[in-house]
Amino acid sequence: MIIDCHGHFTTVPAAHKEFRAQLARLADPSLAEPDYRAPSDDELRAAIEPNQLRVLRERGGDLMIFSPQASAMEHHVADPATARAWARACNDLIHRVGGLFPENFAGVCQLPQTPGGSLDDSVAELRRCVEELDFVGCNVTPDPSGGHWTAPPMTDEYWFPLYEAMTELDVPAMVHVSASCNPAFHTLGAHYLNADTSVFMQLLQGDLFERFPTLRLVIPHGGGAVPYHWGRYRGLAVRMGRPDPSRLLRNVFFDTCVYHQPGIDLLRQVIPVENILFASEMLGAVRGADPETGIAWDDTRTYVDAAGFSDREKSQVFEGNARRVYPRLDAQLTRAGR
Amino acid sequence: MIIDCHGHFTTVPAAHKEFRAQLARLADPSLAEPDYRAPSDDELRAAIEPNQLRVLRERGGDLMIFSPQASAMEHHVADPATARAWARACNDLIHRVGGLFPENFAGVCQLPQTPGGSLDDSVAELRRCVEELDFVGCNVTPDPSGGHWTAPPMTDEYWFPLYEAMTELDVPAMVHVSASCNPAFHTLGAHYLNADTSVFMQLLQGDLFERFPTLRLVIPHGGGAVPYHWGRYRGLAVRMGRPDPSRLLRNVFFDTCVYHQPGIDLLRQVIPVENILFASEMLGAVRGADPETGIAWDDTRTYVDAAGFSDREKSQVFEGNARRVYPRLDAQLTRAGR
Repeated sequence: MIIDCHGHFTTVPAAHKEFRAQLARLADPSLAEPDYRAPSDDELRAAIEPNQLRVLRERGGDLMIFSPQASAMEHHVADPATARAWARACNDLIHRVGGLFPENFAGVCQLPQTPGGSLDDSVAELRRCVEELDFVGCNVTPDPSGGHWTAPPMTDEYWFPLYEAMTELDVPAMVHVSASCNPAFHTLGAHYLNADTSVFMQLLQGDLFERFPTLRLVIPHGGGAVPYHWGRYRGLAVRMGRPDPSRLLRNVFFDTCVYHQPGIDLLRQVIPVENILFASEMLGAVRGADPETGIAWDDTRTYVDAAGFSDREKSQVFEGNARRVYPRLDAQLTRAGR
Repeated sequence: MIIDCHGHFTTVPAAHKEFRAQLARLADPSLAEPDYRAPSDDELRAAIEPNQLRVLRERGGDLMIFSPQASAMEHHVADPATARAWARACNDLIHRVGGLFPENFAGVCQLPQTPGGSLDDSVAELRRCVEELDFVGCNVTPDPSGGHWTAPPMTDEYWFPLYEAMTELDVPAMVHVSASCNPAFHTLGAHYLNADTSVFMQLLQGDLFERFPTLRLVIPHGGGAVPYHWGRYRGLAVRMGRPDPSRLLRNVFFDTCVYHQPGIDLLRQVIPVENILFASEMLGAVRGADPETGIAWDDTRTYVDAAGFSDREKSQVFEGNARRVYPRLDAQLTRAGR
């Protein structure tokens, strides 16, 4: 089977978006909290079937690990109650998609992170999503400020309560920032990739996995700049007296959201196959097709198929690695006889 | 001949570093400005000959485009007088190296940029270095804050006075940040690469080269994450209604500071040969050799030689492109019969 480990609900019904009227209360606290007008099942099907589900099927995919729209997480909104309500609404919507299409979508949750805020709310929402809604992982932003980078490195003890919950629940996190509020960083063309690159280097500098040996982090977008600069990281590690970056690969995984063949070829050449998880991020940052080849930019299945993996390796990239990194997904699939 | 377009004076004599005692005056303005105790010619030779010059020669290189140590530019120090004096001292030292080894080093200057400060001082220092010291280019940081990213994108009119001087003088800039003051960003393993990536995206979003059609920018470190994600940039451009990123390659160039063979292979595959400038950044971020291959990390000549370029293409990468992008260097070499 083919598991796409990185999809966001970027096509939510209008009713869901209306709840973001909650932001008006930050300027005028006298306003009532908006009611959440839940989209109907038909609205949800109309949002999913012609979009993510259609594309998943067209490309031979079976299941997508599905999370709320990343750029709409907007962790930079600093009010904890607003963050809690928004994360809850977004996650509940993902849960409903999983209920409508249980064979095709497994949930990954948004956390109510805020700049400088405690992670208690994030831990509580993670527990709710995993224990009550059968989610299989979470998205964690290393930069709740949205491009101002005011949070400590992800190796700092600030993050430990979240890691403790993740390891107890045995769920991984995808390291994924939200929208950039900094005009220097385009959200999709700079901020996302910078976050991937920066966090890998933070991990190389620290000893996080000595303390949390079973913690697992997925770095999306093919690892940002990391595989392209793998020699730089190896050399820096030597210079800094750190273990080779390959040591991090017990706990760190890269997805295949790299939108051309040479990029996927490099990823395959540099990163061990055990650490590569198939993903497309569709319908995400880049839509449409390359006018020169006719291949959809995010049709990463085509690039992976052409990258020279053996059948056994493809099976790891498409399925085995995801089942290992997301054991709760594996358990669900096994229970369903898949 | 082989021109290395990206080297920094990372091995300065102690006497030069002592001038940085100027920083103490920021806390205690009653202190006198330190005298600049100029290193002797012998001290300079001892700093260069066993280091950059030795390695340049060992690898068959002829000339290095040489600039002050990037991480020591420290544009985050906000006092304009301090920035002016430091840039001047650093650039004068580069000029002296060029005087001692005129066949081997051509100068590129540090600018006295400060966070949010006017670029007038930078324009004046650029003019001094080019017109009086025969420098052939400059380094420009897109983030004088040192990792807080408070400056507007490089397409903003804030930068135009510098671009006007650069185009008038016909010198390119290498886009190069200095040390990171943000613990989220390791200077060499994240901040440098993030800057490369972010600025390319800024350029894709704007119309800078419509206004400055002869402006030339060199993005170092192999373009950060850009070549690895070339498909992402092409797809984003379509989505945003922008010209294909290849359009930027009339004005934007990438160096070869990518420290392993697969990275250089990808660079060659994705970026037109006309836009690739040989560089090593030695003695820079990554020192020593890969214990598995024995090849020095920054021995990019070895990777370029093995990348499958034709002889004509290698001549472009090693020499022709640098002479085209740095016309003042070309004029100097031509006058010298080289």
